[in-house]
Amino acid sequence: MTTHTHQTAPTQYAEANGTRFAYRRFGKAGGVPLVFNQHYTGTMDYWDPAVTNGLAKTREVILFNNAGVSSSSGEVPASFPEMGANAIAFIKALGLSKVDVLGFSIGGMVAQEIALQGSDLVRRVILVGTGPRGADMAASQSHAIFSGIYDPPEHLWLAVHFSPSASSREAGLAFLKRKWERKDRDPEVSAEAVAHQGEAIGKYIAQHEGVLDYLKGIRQPILVVQGSNDMIIPTHNSYVLQQNLPSAELIVYPDANHGSFYQYPELFVAQATQFLDAGFKTPDGASERPSFPSVPSSH
Amino acid sequence: MTTHTHQTAPTQYAEANGTRFAYRRFGKAGGVPLVFNQHYTGTMDYWDPAVTNGLAKTREVILFNNAGVSSSSGEVPASFPEMGANAIAFIKALGLSKVDVLGFSIGGMVAQEIALQGSDLVRRVILVGTGPRGADMAASQSHAIFSGIYDPPEHLWLAVHFSPSASSREAGLAFLKRKWERKDRDPEVSAEAVAHQGEAIGKYIAQHEGVLDYLKGIRQPILVVQGSNDMIIPTHNSYVLQQNLPSAELIVYPDANHGSFYQYPELFVAQATQFLDAGFKTPDGASERPSFPSVPSSH
Repeated sequence: MTTHTHQTAPTQYAEANGTRFAYRRFGKAGGVPLVFNQHYTGTMDYWDPAVTNGLAKTREVILFNNAGVSSSSGEVPASFPEMGANAIAFIKALGLSKVDVLGFSIGGMVAQEIALQGSDLVRRVILVGTGPRGADMAASQSHAIFSGIYDPPEHLWLAVHFSPSASSREAGLAFLKRKWERKDRDPEVSAEAVAHQGEAIGKYIAQHEGVLDYLKGIRQPILVVQGSNDMIIPTHNSYVLQQNLPSAELIVYPDANHGSFYQYPELFVAQATQFLDAGFKTPDGASERPSFPSVPSSH
Repeated sequence: MTTHTHQTAPTQYAEANGTRFAYRRFGKAGGVPLVFNQHYTGTMDYWDPAVTNGLAKTREVILFNNAGVSSSSGEVPASFPEMGANAIAFIKALGLSKVDVLGFSIGGMVAQEIALQGSDLVRRVILVGTGPRGADMAASQSHAIFSGIYDPPEHLWLAVHFSPSASSREAGLAFLKRKWERKDRDPEVSAEAVAHQGEAIGKYIAQHEGVLDYLKGIRQPILVVQGSNDMIIPTHNSYVLQQNLPSAELIVYPDANHGSFYQYPELFVAQATQFLDAGFKTPDGASERPSFPSVPSSH
């Protein structure tokens, strides 16, 4: 299994709660696997191989389609707590008792729910380009960007994930090339699945008194990663996550939009690996590993 | 020189503009040296040896007392632009034509001025626990903390640099122990020097139309580092720096106060080394080195 990569890992299936979950699993076995939760309208093929293969050098990576998405059976529920419960059923169906979780965009909203409901199951969490319940979406350009016309259509993802600068656009074109390196591909998501994801977003961002209180219940060490100007889920929401989670590190990358970790994949992989391998002490002094890795050698 | 450390590097002197600057220089020679700019009331002895020695593994580290501070002659000017000009005179007196600059607290305000005035001299900048001109100090507890009574008096620095949590306090006590490992010590700063530093702060934080415009003139890649709850220079000012500098990465550490990099020295050294060795592309595509270091090996 360790010889497989993002490009070659076969799609496998696991049954839980009446759903047949499609997944791919590759990387260095023996430690705590990292489970990836995908963004709006995305499948397993939407991840950046530079990120997944980069992290797979030091741990097992598990990509999956949640219930109702692409090659998984079932229905997409219209709320993130329900998607989180489905993800936990999938993880347990693999026989895993401890995982790390990464979530991107609405996958980050699902990852927060997994961490809350799976307080014993989840060790550490990485949240990229996302926000808390009640996120402030006033500055979001999401509707205009997703309803735009692109030639080729795939360039939608330049507008979603990258900034207009020359260097960000160059990084975006390199990402799109990497994204298509895998030949054996997932089917696209259905219109019904996308509609339910949209409904879940609507419920999630509703404002009410104490909407952020749940963050105090997420006790795991968290790494929050964001671009300087996320036009889908505005950047300030990541600052709000860091300020309200009990134990979170925030990293904001320059000149970057929603897909900041695809713009700086080597840097992200290095920083995410540091975080997952070493973490940091939580305010009550708990730490699974007492120290950080030593300085990487310079090149 | 490469065998010296924070604890053993001899104090040397360099003359510029009629000032005799005291400095210490150690670490791995041959690359771009990193010049440290100290906080309010601090001398060369106030740096954390875990940070200075950690960075000295991969580059030369230069500590110095700016004009009028401790063992340097001259007067502390009552503005950060003048302190920046003095720092540049010192750097040039060493015969250096390219340096990286680190500034902590008011040293970060000086570092911004060095970067502005020395656009050809300065390659990259690290700003820790600081803010921009016109910084919002409404939530600062600085006055209460610095006018408090501590037993022993040295525990002032637990209140300034660390949070009240058990793990932060433990990290703080370890820092104070490290800080006193050097025996050959600088004299403390004079009351007059401290008064002039205070006057400079007062001018710097004055609000006016366009007060942040100068940040667009700082073209170097910047790493901004901060604690989740800086009670001296409130954390949000670091977010404002990141959002307004043309090319800045922000890292916010959990459960941390003003001295966040002394709470997580190994993590800070690893991340600062990554940044200094690799940087990132600026929005116009410029980059001195094209890629990031590979993933550090796990332990």
